[in-house]
Amino acid sequence: MAVSEIDQLIALFARLPGLGPRSARRAVLHLLQRREQHLQPLAAALTRVSQTIKICSVCGNLDDHDPCRICRSEERDRRVICVVEDVSALWALERSGAFRGLYHVLGGTLSAIDGRSPEELNITGLVGRASAPEVEEVILALGATVEGQTTAHYIQDRLPAGRVRVSRLAHGVPVGGALDYLDDGTLNAALQARRPA
Amino acid sequence: MAVSEIDQLIALFARLPGLGPRSARRAVLHLLQRREQHLQPLAAALTRVSQTIKICSVCGNLDDHDPCRICRSEERDRRVICVVEDVSALWALERSGAFRGLYHVLGGTLSAIDGRSPEELNITGLVGRASAPEVEEVILALGATVEGQTTAHYIQDRLPAGRVRVSRLAHGVPVGGALDYLDDGTLNAALQARRPA
Repeated sequence: MAVSEIDQLIALFARLPGLGPRSARRAVLHLLQRREQHLQPLAAALTRVSQTIKICSVCGNLDDHDPCRICRSEERDRRVICVVEDVSALWALERSGAFRGLYHVLGGTLSAIDGRSPEELNITGLVGRASAPEVEEVILALGATVEGQTTAHYIQDRLPAGRVRVSRLAHGVPVGGALDYLDDGTLNAALQARRPA
Repeated sequence: MAVSEIDQLIALFARLPGLGPRSARRAVLHLLQRREQHLQPLAAALTRVSQTIKICSVCGNLDDHDPCRICRSEERDRRVICVVEDVSALWALERSGAFRGLYHVLGGTLSAIDGRSPEELNITGLVGRASAPEVEEVILALGATVEGQTTAHYIQDRLPAGRVRVSRLAHGVPVGGALDYLDDGTLNAALQARRPA
């Protein structure tokens, strides 16, 4: 029925990635039927996050402190900066637990199609950070797409060569991945980069 | 990274129907990157809805008024009550625009498996409403499932037979549906209920 407040809420849910009008209706109805257990906590958490989360002025991460808790941590290795396209890549690396250095979030990749130029990415900030005496390595952890690799090239040319090591992520077979589901490019890269067993 | 406020928000999104941890992370990141356009309006809409939406004491619908705007409307046909399992069915019928009477939300169906007994459904309220002199028809718009049909039988036995007409939705081929995708039960029902062309 045309309840405008409920309809507004459904429209806001339907704009989230991965949801459409139908799943937005289901989600809102689910919330309305669990007001105390789910609707109110969600409303409170959204309000809290919208008031407290900031963009880290050093690395571009999202956190309730600026600088973020990675940039402020005593336990992170300040000699390595890992360059990522966006915060979701940073989260993915943090979940893996494989990296203990610092990050730098570009905020996108260079793209002729989308008209994104170097000025729109946080590249100047990266070059400044990479010039600090303690930094020894910059890892360009960008996607294996045309845009990602173009961006990596562009950045590499601007970093203080000779002073910092610049590296990229290895290509290869995903752990747990069956060979017959992999594309030719990945198989080719995995063969090229083969190691002694 | 382990931002507890963001993680809490992701966990709340992940509990919504149709979302998992991965899509919840995407949704939250999307919101964090569109704070003014999406995050704050969503937080405000959820808070507003959690404060204003009530369950209609007449029909069981969700609305910001009690009785709801359907039960209060002068334009609805008060001679017909359409019995639905839950509010999502009510919304679906309202979207279709095919029904202009009143509703009655049961709050579920009888189920031996889930242990739902008649007392847990709003059946007494329905029998009371159906006894009002202006009511001429009760439409049992319940699902074509075992539970839905059991519930319809149970309700039919309790309604003032002879005084009100009791009807059910027609079974048949969905409009726009191709025959070869339909199950045998539906095809059978559509054949049985065939009409002169």
